[in-house]
Amino acid sequence: MRGTGNYLNQSHQPILLFLHMLLFNPPIGVRKMLIFFLCFNLSLTINAQQPTWVEEAPGVWKTIIGKPDAFDLLKAAEVPARLDGLEKLSASGFPLEKTDIKAEVIHGQTHLRFPLEREEQLFGFGLNFKTVHQRGNILRLHVDHYGGRDNGRTHAPVPFYVSSLGYGVFINAARYMDIYAGTGSRRDSPNAPEPRDRNTDDQWSARPYSDAVEVLIPTGGVEVYLFEGPTPLDAVRRYNLFTGGGPLPPRWGLGFVQRVPRLFSEEDVMQEVKDFENRGFPLDVVGLEPGWQSKSYPNTFVWDPGRFPDPEGFISTLKGKGVRVNLWVNPYISPDSPLYEKLFPYTASHTVWAGIVPDFTMDEVIAPYWGFFEKEHVKIGVSGYKVDEVDGYDQWLWPDVAKFPSGISAEQMRQTYGLLVQKQSAAIFHRRNQRTFGLVRASNGGGTSFPYVLYNDYYNHRDFITALINSGYAGVLWTPEARASKTAEEWLRRMQTVVFSPMAMINAWASGTKPWSFPEVEEEVKAMAMLRMQMMPYWYSEFAKYHFEGTPPFRGMNLETGFSFGTQKLTMSDSEADLETNPYAEVVKKEIKDQYMAGESLLVAPMFEGEEERKVILPEGKWYDFYTGEMVGEGEEITVRPGLSNIPVFVKDGGIIPMTTPSLHTSGAGEKYDLIIRHYGKKEGSYFLYDDDGETFDYEKGDYSWRELKVVHGEDGRLQGTVSHPESGKPDYLGKISWEFMSP
Amino acid sequence: MRGTGNYLNQSHQPILLFLHMLLFNPPIGVRKMLIFFLCFNLSLTINAQQPTWVEEAPGVWKTIIGKPDAFDLLKAAEVPARLDGLEKLSASGFPLEKTDIKAEVIHGQTHLRFPLEREEQLFGFGLNFKTVHQRGNILRLHVDHYGGRDNGRTHAPVPFYVSSLGYGVFINAARYMDIYAGTGSRRDSPNAPEPRDRNTDDQWSARPYSDAVEVLIPTGGVEVYLFEGPTPLDAVRRYNLFTGGGPLPPRWGLGFVQRVPRLFSEEDVMQEVKDFENRGFPLDVVGLEPGWQSKSYPNTFVWDPGRFPDPEGFISTLKGKGVRVNLWVNPYISPDSPLYEKLFPYTASHTVWAGIVPDFTMDEVIAPYWGFFEKEHVKIGVSGYKVDEVDGYDQWLWPDVAKFPSGISAEQMRQTYGLLVQKQSAAIFHRRNQRTFGLVRASNGGGTSFPYVLYNDYYNHRDFITALINSGYAGVLWTPEARASKTAEEWLRRMQTVVFSPMAMINAWASGTKPWSFPEVEEEVKAMAMLRMQMMPYWYSEFAKYHFEGTPPFRGMNLETGFSFGTQKLTMSDSEADLETNPYAEVVKKEIKDQYMAGESLLVAPMFEGEEERKVILPEGKWYDFYTGEMVGEGEEITVRPGLSNIPVFVKDGGIIPMTTPSLHTSGAGEKYDLIIRHYGKKEGSYFLYDDDGETFDYEKGDYSWRELKVVHGEDGRLQGTVSHPESGKPDYLGKISWEFMSP
Repeated sequence: MRGTGNYLNQSHQPILLFLHMLLFNPPIGVRKMLIFFLCFNLSLTINAQQPTWVEEAPGVWKTIIGKPDAFDLLKAAEVPARLDGLEKLSASGFPLEKTDIKAEVIHGQTHLRFPLEREEQLFGFGLNFKTVHQRGNILRLHVDHYGGRDNGRTHAPVPFYVSSLGYGVFINAARYMDIYAGTGSRRDSPNAPEPRDRNTDDQWSARPYSDAVEVLIPTGGVEVYLFEGPTPLDAVRRYNLFTGGGPLPPRWGLGFVQRVPRLFSEEDVMQEVKDFENRGFPLDVVGLEPGWQSKSYPNTFVWDPGRFPDPEGFISTLKGKGVRVNLWVNPYISPDSPLYEKLFPYTASHTVWAGIVPDFTMDEVIAPYWGFFEKEHVKIGVSGYKVDEVDGYDQWLWPDVAKFPSGISAEQMRQTYGLLVQKQSAAIFHRRNQRTFGLVRASNGGGTSFPYVLYNDYYNHRDFITALINSGYAGVLWTPEARASKTAEEWLRRMQTVVFSPMAMINAWASGTKPWSFPEVEEEVKAMAMLRMQMMPYWYSEFAKYHFEGTPPFRGMNLETGFSFGTQKLTMSDSEADLETNPYAEVVKKEIKDQYMAGESLLVAPMFEGEEERKVILPEGKWYDFYTGEMVGEGEEITVRPGLSNIPVFVKDGGIIPMTTPSLHTSGAGEKYDLIIRHYGKKEGSYFLYDDDGETFDYEKGDYSWRELKVVHGEDGRLQGTVSHPESGKPDYLGKISWEFMSP
Repeated sequence: MRGTGNYLNQSHQPILLFLHMLLFNPPIGVRKMLIFFLCFNLSLTINAQQPTWVEEAPGVWKTIIGKPDAFDLLKAAEVPARLDGLEKLSASGFPLEKTDIKAEVIHGQTHLRFPLEREEQLFGFGLNFKTVHQRGNILRLHVDHYGGRDNGRTHAPVPFYVSSLGYGVFINAARYMDIYAGTGSRRDSPNAPEPRDRNTDDQWSARPYSDAVEVLIPTGGVEVYLFEGPTPLDAVRRYNLFTGGGPLPPRWGLGFVQRVPRLFSEEDVMQEVKDFENRGFPLDVVGLEPGWQSKSYPNTFVWDPGRFPDPEGFISTLKGKGVRVNLWVNPYISPDSPLYEKLFPYTASHTVWAGIVPDFTMDEVIAPYWGFFEKEHVKIGVSGYKVDEVDGYDQWLWPDVAKFPSGISAEQMRQTYGLLVQKQSAAIFHRRNQRTFGLVRASNGGGTSFPYVLYNDYYNHRDFITALINSGYAGVLWTPEARASKTAEEWLRRMQTVVFSPMAMINAWASGTKPWSFPEVEEEVKAMAMLRMQMMPYWYSEFAKYHFEGTPPFRGMNLETGFSFGTQKLTMSDSEADLETNPYAEVVKKEIKDQYMAGESLLVAPMFEGEEERKVILPEGKWYDFYTGEMVGEGEEITVRPGLSNIPVFVKDGGIIPMTTPSLHTSGAGEKYDLIIRHYGKKEGSYFLYDDDGETFDYEKGDYSWRELKVVHGEDGRLQGTVSHPESGKPDYLGKISWEFMSP
């Protein structure tokens, strides 16, 4: 029964025992005397501790407060740190004043405090959808479907944040924790805000200055990790590497994904695939939604003999066409599933849609459950899963009063269920030396390396982009999937962002929408889809950098050097006009949440339905138009009117983008491909191109190559490019190589 | 240090100690063996307990689970039960199958389970604004400003619910508790829902049947109370009486209240009072908002010498005009307050708007703090307070990591702060034998008897009415205050509901709105205001019934006998059209949340801006129009078009409404008043009229009278009325008595 240790707190025990002898129904007279004694006693026990820190890995510092739970996020994920990557980052010592960090355990709860400078900015705390700057927010981190407010309830409420001052903090607990990201003011703080008279002082603020991040974890101890910079991006890299580095998807995982409607049959799917072929739209993966199995919500996990009489033949036929099959599941077991009887004793006290809920922390579950998946799905060629319903809502998941046979609490299970299904399903593929790339609805701290992309049912396009930005601070991947649209314009705008995301996917499970569903923009959509395929060498190399170096392929502007905009001002609106509706004149934030970095050199500024132009903030240096190579600006705010067919994308001076020829499917294992190398701007540049077989885990044995694409000024002063050879013994997948100097 | 006992749980102690010896970093090999041992051990410790119940008061049953916190809601409120009232209710024994109630303490948290029948309905769980039926909801009870969702965060998250089967449940803990009001399905329940295949079975539901209310309290034990019926209203009465019965306001408290704009001066207020006089609008109380004191947010609690050079003179002048003064405060102390130095050591670790936060559980605070209020305000004639900012938001209240010198946790303080300020401020007036009636922003279980009405900054008119209904299930009072309006119609509609509420108030602190601010409807507004004054004998008697008998003066239709409508059906919308936005076709509820009972015989059905007609559901029996006496229907749904000037109000057959002559101020202590008794319908009837001096607590010594107003058929078959004499020695405040038979 892991996860129980937390309910004792040695430092309090003697007092508590004493309390028990006295506190319950003492003679009335005794009580007052008691209060004083206890206050006195309390004051002894709650003096803030000074944590001691140990360097766990290069630039990664660890401390243990009180008695942590036996079960936590890192134990759920069970992924070793990528020390190779961490060692390459320059570490320069503990990044904060140790004395500024306080921790104590009171009433069996852990209180943490971290310092906050005046101009410091905070990012992270998981997959938020509306805010990038987290300073001033209060969050209760809780795995759940995103409910429209950044309050901590989200698909990946990762207890990690990064500071603009260049350090990161991770709290390793599988608990609902309360985060006060610079909101509380302490009476005795040297930085306590000065009181003001709201009646007469227009400098009065509803939220006075706060000099700390404070965290409450409802358990008697916790592990805390601190990550050095020096830059915020370095701190993010360290967190990602410490938690295993990003996943390296199979090449096909970065191709196009179409999820077909529920209850589709073998023939329906075949027809859809044929349509893609005939219309010349790229397709690498077909996702089957509810209906491939005989019963779902809860699930049998068995193919429906009516809709799929010959799954193995069906899958190999598709494979022959260069298309993989992904299966939707949720983990809850139907009485009609062969798994039911055997697993029944190892399931929760409560059901989900009347299906039993497997306790994924128990070996009695793991082997038979995933063994069945391997036998029935993976062995016959299934390429991966979409694991649904592991996030929320509360209304249909198990309640927090539920009990699990392992003794793990419902809360801990809620916080880690997504991690557990990712870890255990990915293991099937790993032991078969076959990469997978799937979808999951919940993750958490420690899950960086799992080959899964998060998604949900929320559908606000702008907020999808903000989530994409925040995914880069949380060690997760997020897809702004396109499902349906009211207009052709919206459809095209959504498809444009899908192409510049970790998974280029249409999820047509309910709508049956196809890329060409809006004929007015069919050609534009196709062009974008093809662009995704042409950029494959770039995408693949960027994911390799996520894997080996920890750099998120999609990330916020605030992680970009030379991006100074957006210092958060907590300014009070001085208009009293809105006192009726907003009596405290709530603070307003200035933040950039609608443009992002895609890989090393690309700045993407999506257009949203109804927009004809938009502002883009360019970091320092010259920036060039991705499509034309023209210079567009230099460390400034520009306004662009790209027209309908293009999504604004910009390349930094000297940026090199390796591309290839258009194709309907990504290249297969070991297959050679032609390289078309684009260079932008006037500067010399260098880019490292990653290659391996694209499908197996042989890269773990060293079967991969990094090749430098280099552009320098020749003697004639003109730019010229070279491509290094792979080290001896390393694979070479390059066919014809050509150069395009976009800004001559 | 009360509130610490909860962190031990004897039943677990041996195991936990054992765990400690083994669990933390055991030799790797041992771990697996350990898991099994612990699972086994767990299974022994978590078998559901069978609580034992003791009849604490007539029809009130109590059980103690585990080791409750030393500090809880009832200890915060410290109000004795009204045994006299409870003894008058017929008790018929424990209302549930004892074996259907389960309780256990796991991991230091208390799990509770109560049974739920198929057609059973649930009401309560505090001051909700959008829903009346709570079955199917999940709430985390947490004192806070209402944020627009019924999720448990509200001004009075009272852990009390009442069942349509005629019993009530109260959980006495000052904790954030999770309520699953019929949402979870247990694997081993005899009533477990049958699994369905969502792919093909249109009976599939996103929320399968649940047969229990389950509660998680994050502490090692709790007190639970069960209240007998036989009717749901009886269960509510018992809860109210057990927590002290409703407050008996001074008569003037039920008159008209105008809260003037912030920074108003003595002269400004005098002018406003004169305007009321000149225009002939009733006025009993003027409320001073921020600015009467020298500094606020945080507060000095000292009169501003510029705006109020002579507060005592000012107050007595107003008193001479029949107008009382109420003072806005929040509890947070400015360094410029005389209280600052002395109370500093007894305040929280965190400040609110840079003001120190008094620990109201400590005698070192209570005496000096409220003593100062008595000396500076009450002694010179202040009639009461509006205590603001004791609810939330999290953004400006103390965080849950804050520490209080008494050792009470920030969570417990948050849940009870509103109770403590009500109790302690009310005590000032009680010891002066002077009644008060004020406003407060937060309350909780146990606060029934405090003379305070809840309010907030939310301003949705419909939701205000739903809150008024829910207040009747929560032992609190709520005012749908009018602040401002965009149109004359909205203003009039809001004023009409204000008149049929516990406190007839305009809160113009920000807008400066006056009753006559919309000239188009000035006369209609005045007529409604005068109606409020004419109905004073009815309102006053109904509050007396709240006080002595526990019957909420404003309550939901579901508490009315003969109101059968609204059995909640959890039906799944079968339209799949909305799968994109609502992939689980969320359940829909059928409930009545826009009409309510006001006192014994009145049914109020407010009109909202833009409505010309509305539907009204009449309980069994004949119902009559309040204004005309005409019969409108009988146990049916009717549609009414009242026009702009009237709010639809209906009287049950035989209903008797004691009224008086119009006046601008309520009658003073001992003053006689004329009685105009209205009778509606054809039935004989009886009504008990309450009287006392209207200002002091002498009624506690028995100085009050109940007189029966009786209507019977005379020998000629015509209805005739009689008024009983007061018992000997009881006061008589009646002047001229006249009868109006409204439905001849």
